[in-house]
Amino acid sequence: MGEQKAGSGNDAGGGGIDDARRAYALLTRLVEAPSAAMRGLIDEFGAVETADMLCRGLPPPGFEALVSATAARVEDLCSGGDPLDRADADLRHVARLGGRLVVPEDPEWPAWALHPLAERVRPPDGGHDDEWRELRPFALWVVGAGRLDELLDRAVALVGTRAPSSYGEHVARWFAGDLAAQGFTVVSGGAYGIDAAAHRGALASGGATVAILGAGVDRPYPAGHAQLFRAMGERGALVSEYPPGTPPGRHRFLNRNRLVACATRGVVVVEAGLRSGTRNTASWAARRSLPVCAVPGPVTTATSVTCHTLIRDGAELVTSAADVVFRCGAAGEMAPQPEAPARPTDGLTPAQLQVHDAFPARSELGVSELARRSGQPPASVRAALTVLELRELVEPAGARWRLVRRGDREREV
Amino acid sequence: MGEQKAGSGNDAGGGGIDDARRAYALLTRLVEAPSAAMRGLIDEFGAVETADMLCRGLPPPGFEALVSATAARVEDLCSGGDPLDRADADLRHVARLGGRLVVPEDPEWPAWALHPLAERVRPPDGGHDDEWRELRPFALWVVGAGRLDELLDRAVALVGTRAPSSYGEHVARWFAGDLAAQGFTVVSGGAYGIDAAAHRGALASGGATVAILGAGVDRPYPAGHAQLFRAMGERGALVSEYPPGTPPGRHRFLNRNRLVACATRGVVVVEAGLRSGTRNTASWAARRSLPVCAVPGPVTTATSVTCHTLIRDGAELVTSAADVVFRCGAAGEMAPQPEAPARPTDGLTPAQLQVHDAFPARSELGVSELARRSGQPPASVRAALTVLELRELVEPAGARWRLVRRGDREREV
Repeated sequence: MGEQKAGSGNDAGGGGIDDARRAYALLTRLVEAPSAAMRGLIDEFGAVETADMLCRGLPPPGFEALVSATAARVEDLCSGGDPLDRADADLRHVARLGGRLVVPEDPEWPAWALHPLAERVRPPDGGHDDEWRELRPFALWVVGAGRLDELLDRAVALVGTRAPSSYGEHVARWFAGDLAAQGFTVVSGGAYGIDAAAHRGALASGGATVAILGAGVDRPYPAGHAQLFRAMGERGALVSEYPPGTPPGRHRFLNRNRLVACATRGVVVVEAGLRSGTRNTASWAARRSLPVCAVPGPVTTATSVTCHTLIRDGAELVTSAADVVFRCGAAGEMAPQPEAPARPTDGLTPAQLQVHDAFPARSELGVSELARRSGQPPASVRAALTVLELRELVEPAGARWRLVRRGDREREV
Repeated sequence: MGEQKAGSGNDAGGGGIDDARRAYALLTRLVEAPSAAMRGLIDEFGAVETADMLCRGLPPPGFEALVSATAARVEDLCSGGDPLDRADADLRHVARLGGRLVVPEDPEWPAWALHPLAERVRPPDGGHDDEWRELRPFALWVVGAGRLDELLDRAVALVGTRAPSSYGEHVARWFAGDLAAQGFTVVSGGAYGIDAAAHRGALASGGATVAILGAGVDRPYPAGHAQLFRAMGERGALVSEYPPGTPPGRHRFLNRNRLVACATRGVVVVEAGLRSGTRNTASWAARRSLPVCAVPGPVTTATSVTCHTLIRDGAELVTSAADVVFRCGAAGEMAPQPEAPARPTDGLTPAQLQVHDAFPARSELGVSELARRSGQPPASVRAALTVLELRELVEPAGARWRLVRRGDREREV
């Protein structure tokens, strides 16, 4: 490959970083992300040499499968002119949309947020060990003003069904608004339903929100969210592992789920039916030991089934954004637990409560009648009356006693 | 005490059991239930001798507190004529209502159901060890046609707030109806709200239901449920530890909660607000290692707060009567878990899924184009196509392939 002009929207570094960026841009087009083999090559040889080797069909021994997997695309991109021309065109195209390719060499690369993906684990849901081992993205196409590392520094994923109930939609907006107001970035998949409600809730409270896409950033899916995606580009980001022009696909949504789950501090499943891709997202988080939270809902609606199953399986039941902060926030970010309202009779012993309950609503009683009614010995009645008077529950009336009248006293516990 | 005529609605035994029953009837009036000391005396001396000793103020050493506690009532009942006259009157009064006093000597005494109460444990919620140690009732006033031991042999408690949402009321009726249809007796407290909905749901599906009361069986509380209580007397039972005429009282409701919780195979909290007596019922069950189940609900309503707290604290999340049977039924009474509906693409490897997703909705593609779009080597594409064809997901079209069209295929996971 010859020397090429940079021609991209990125100008963070000198020629070195721009060469690397063009190589990464080409690699996102040559190899379907994620690719363990590709990461291995990049880690060992760097992006420029990796792209060069792949285009020439000459990677080191042990990478035959990668050569085979990329053969068709290599033939398309590398057999004619300089393949980096296509990379430049992609970078220019995304730059015109206000975007860029963020690569590990960039200061804004979210290394810390992506850390959970660096460990090698078996993926959930029938994934195959040999195909999915290395799960870190090698570069991210981003449209949006904010720095990606800052956006993902304190992020929570809110996910759920594309066909929520009005309850689920309400909860997603409410949680997202509260989380955004507390400085959390709300991450989701940009889909209809819960995803969109979460993005909108964050935007409505003036916060940042990130959509991770299963398609190119120039054709975010679904098209019906064009306006929402534009707003997110202004106050947040659209993020994709796939090069511009990539159409959405089911395996890309599954793959996107791993980023939604693992690039955040935890996943909140707001509403999801029995069969839902949300389970896949939650599994990714669970296998990485990231918190999985689920919002309960009516047992009479199908859209809460998966939330309830997740809670049974160990997910945290959350009822407010404060609960989410408690689970997913840093230490010290704790919301106070609600306290039960106090009753005047709280803390009475059973004997004291029996004497209290022995009083009729309006008339006065003496000690012996109280002993009879309560089944307590007179000495115990007298001791209880002292406590009850101190607590202003009863008052003396000559030699007898009566209840202190209150507004809305409840009769039954 | 002299020999008295039986004069009660009970005629299960000869003079011995009727003497005992009259003594028990008197004891329920002399001592506020439950009483550890009373149980101790009865276990050692029997009911007849215990009643005689208490009336004469001559129990053995160590029972001074009991003498003192009963002094006022003893003076009322034992200082004039024969105290057993009052017991006879009580038995006759309850017999006229279709009721009886069930005592441990009776074949219908629910010894098995009450077994969890025989262990000595600290009660929850600030109860005092020395006052509440022995928790078995010593006799039960019952109005109702069924045998108490049979009614409680397979019973589940459904409890909750007196001011439920329409959702909670619906769920209580639904669960109760389903449980009753499966032969479970639905036990509750007869209160407004969830209790009443549970009783009604059981009755509506032709099942049995039992209300355990915090007042005498002749004045079940609340009075607004008179018709419901009548229906329960016909197909179930009203049960109370307290003698006829006893007014409701808060300590009696708390005490009743222990029976609701511990005379059943488990407690289901349907709906309960932040401050609820239901927590007390659930605590009784939990301390006795009986299953505590809770029904989740919208996080936006106050009436599900306690359910969610209980689930967080370890209660079983239940979404149907089948879940309750699974938790509270005998071994073998298991409901099948719902299975997720199968999708045609279930079980495909990521590589197969990528090839499948590479197809456009309507046109045909060859192997090399599929390799390009999916990022898979041609050999892998061919292998995937074989599997996809076997599963009738794709079909050949000459040298190319196309998707098999389906009705309502979903695009996104």
